[in-house]
Amino acid sequence: MSSLSSVSLGEHPESLTGTMSPDVVLSAQARIAPHVHRTPLMSCQLLNDWLGHELVFKVECFQRAGAFKIRGALNAMLQLKEEGRLPKHIVAFSSGNHAQAVALAGTMLGVKTTVIMPKFVSKLKQQATRSYGAELILTDTRMEAEELAAEKQAQGAWLLHPSADDMVIAGQGTACLEALQDAQQPDAVFATCGGGGLLSGTWLATKLLTPDVQVFGAEPVMANDATQSYRSGKIFSFTESPMTIADGARTLHVSELTMQYLRRLAGFYEVEERDIIYWTQWLTHLLKVNVEPTAAVAMGAAYQWLRTQTEKKRALVILSGGNIGTATYQQIWKENYLDHIPAL
Amino acid sequence: MSSLSSVSLGEHPESLTGTMSPDVVLSAQARIAPHVHRTPLMSCQLLNDWLGHELVFKVECFQRAGAFKIRGALNAMLQLKEEGRLPKHIVAFSSGNHAQAVALAGTMLGVKTTVIMPKFVSKLKQQATRSYGAELILTDTRMEAEELAAEKQAQGAWLLHPSADDMVIAGQGTACLEALQDAQQPDAVFATCGGGGLLSGTWLATKLLTPDVQVFGAEPVMANDATQSYRSGKIFSFTESPMTIADGARTLHVSELTMQYLRRLAGFYEVEERDIIYWTQWLTHLLKVNVEPTAAVAMGAAYQWLRTQTEKKRALVILSGGNIGTATYQQIWKENYLDHIPAL
Repeated sequence: MSSLSSVSLGEHPESLTGTMSPDVVLSAQARIAPHVHRTPLMSCQLLNDWLGHELVFKVECFQRAGAFKIRGALNAMLQLKEEGRLPKHIVAFSSGNHAQAVALAGTMLGVKTTVIMPKFVSKLKQQATRSYGAELILTDTRMEAEELAAEKQAQGAWLLHPSADDMVIAGQGTACLEALQDAQQPDAVFATCGGGGLLSGTWLATKLLTPDVQVFGAEPVMANDATQSYRSGKIFSFTESPMTIADGARTLHVSELTMQYLRRLAGFYEVEERDIIYWTQWLTHLLKVNVEPTAAVAMGAAYQWLRTQTEKKRALVILSGGNIGTATYQQIWKENYLDHIPAL
Repeated sequence: MSSLSSVSLGEHPESLTGTMSPDVVLSAQARIAPHVHRTPLMSCQLLNDWLGHELVFKVECFQRAGAFKIRGALNAMLQLKEEGRLPKHIVAFSSGNHAQAVALAGTMLGVKTTVIMPKFVSKLKQQATRSYGAELILTDTRMEAEELAAEKQAQGAWLLHPSADDMVIAGQGTACLEALQDAQQPDAVFATCGGGGLLSGTWLATKLLTPDVQVFGAEPVMANDATQSYRSGKIFSFTESPMTIADGARTLHVSELTMQYLRRLAGFYEVEERDIIYWTQWLTHLLKVNVEPTAAVAMGAAYQWLRTQTEKKRALVILSGGNIGTATYQQIWKENYLDHIPAL
């Protein structure tokens, strides 16, 4: 298990400059609810007994296209449509789940979509993006994908950013909002940080319904750009995608927009690769659902937080998705961690 | 894909000698419903589109202890209790899921349980059986496990057979019964054959609610004892456990009791190991749930049947469970089949 690596900066609830009103998450929910699944909450008595705490999981692998990302993409497109400015062509760059979400949402609303992704993304995600209806362009690196997307934007396409977009952030917040509506109030909420959209929306959802609940970000140690940014107050950027097994966290940096929310979180936890794999194995085994490593990062963070608690706590963990390619499965199951029962 | 290998013998609905009235499944449902999960039905639009048919899955990996087996074990113990003859000590031999079910049901009813299993069963299943509360004894072979269980029985313990037991058969039938109550009527139902308990109960459930629906058995080619028995009318037995990846089908033979039901099925399909792995990968990917190879055998059979159909059909596939050890995961994901989209 990793040692504790939380960074504790205080929240600043009084200075919300630059952030949206939490109500936007409620509007997003009303907008997208007819088109997305209200995903289940799951828990595991055995795991709770082992850890002496209560863990509640929001299982977004059962969301349409297999991840929470459709919430943000659909909220953006539906809002643009409401405002009479739905674009004819939407372009996106993405390491996977956002790509599929944009492709699916575009098909649902009859909008042409082009997705640009680095070629190291699994063939399965490439294939899925195509079969949901997008034109797919592969680049050598993540940075090239971002650059090409900007070019397309300059040529007139609407660039739907995976996280640096108010409408996307509001949409991603509906996952946590549903969980807070359906479950008993948790003491803390955990979500993995890629570009920060899910975490920003999650923070907004808690401010709306349960303002005292702490929200923590989770990152792989080797992809800890947001943690570094949180610590220093300045956005840190990688120059190359960190090749963590948690492919949803391979983003180079968070955005100015999401940073406005991330700096208000209760803290960040960094999770070692072996712990990411450990929790991927155990959550798969205990919940019987596909848990992608990116989702397991949030559990690794919750585990670190629970170790610091002296009283019984309830933690809500947003499991971001369940899209896993064969090469990743091979990495996940290369070693056996199921002989080591979780304990604090 | 395997070539068609169905064995078609006619049903003999008029000669039910030796079989129970289908009502027993309804009684079993009333008895166990407060204690087991009503597991979900799942389907996948993409898969249906690809195959041009409708597939409905009864997802028993979400059942207590991760498989359908708790239904039979609990029905037997609750019925014995109703009749005032709940034994003080129950013994079972099992390759895995029945063991966990007996252990859990015993703990629920306060009965001491001893489980005897061959040592090749995954450590995870051994550990689970212990943690559900059973005493565990390991033997070198499956046959030794059966012999030791018979010894314990001679010494006064109640032997709860995994399939050759009317009460167990009635309990296993409740999985299909729930599915028939919850879904539109299928044209055919598919279940994997280990000892034949699930299939026997499934046949009873269809006779009760949808007597025209065909029930097919599914077996790995390399563990095709029931298919051979069905074909010849005489029970065929292996002398050693066939080491198919579908560990729930490693039984040596069906019993005289289950044979009474199996001979009335519409046919058996045999599934090659690579096809079992193919469907394990694809069902895991599409449904986002843990599908153990034993469960995927039934999908392999449904696929073979669908290939023979000229009109659009609805197939109900009972996915028996989701308990998978690390070594089996490694076998499942050793090669990549997700580049080959299912098609008829």
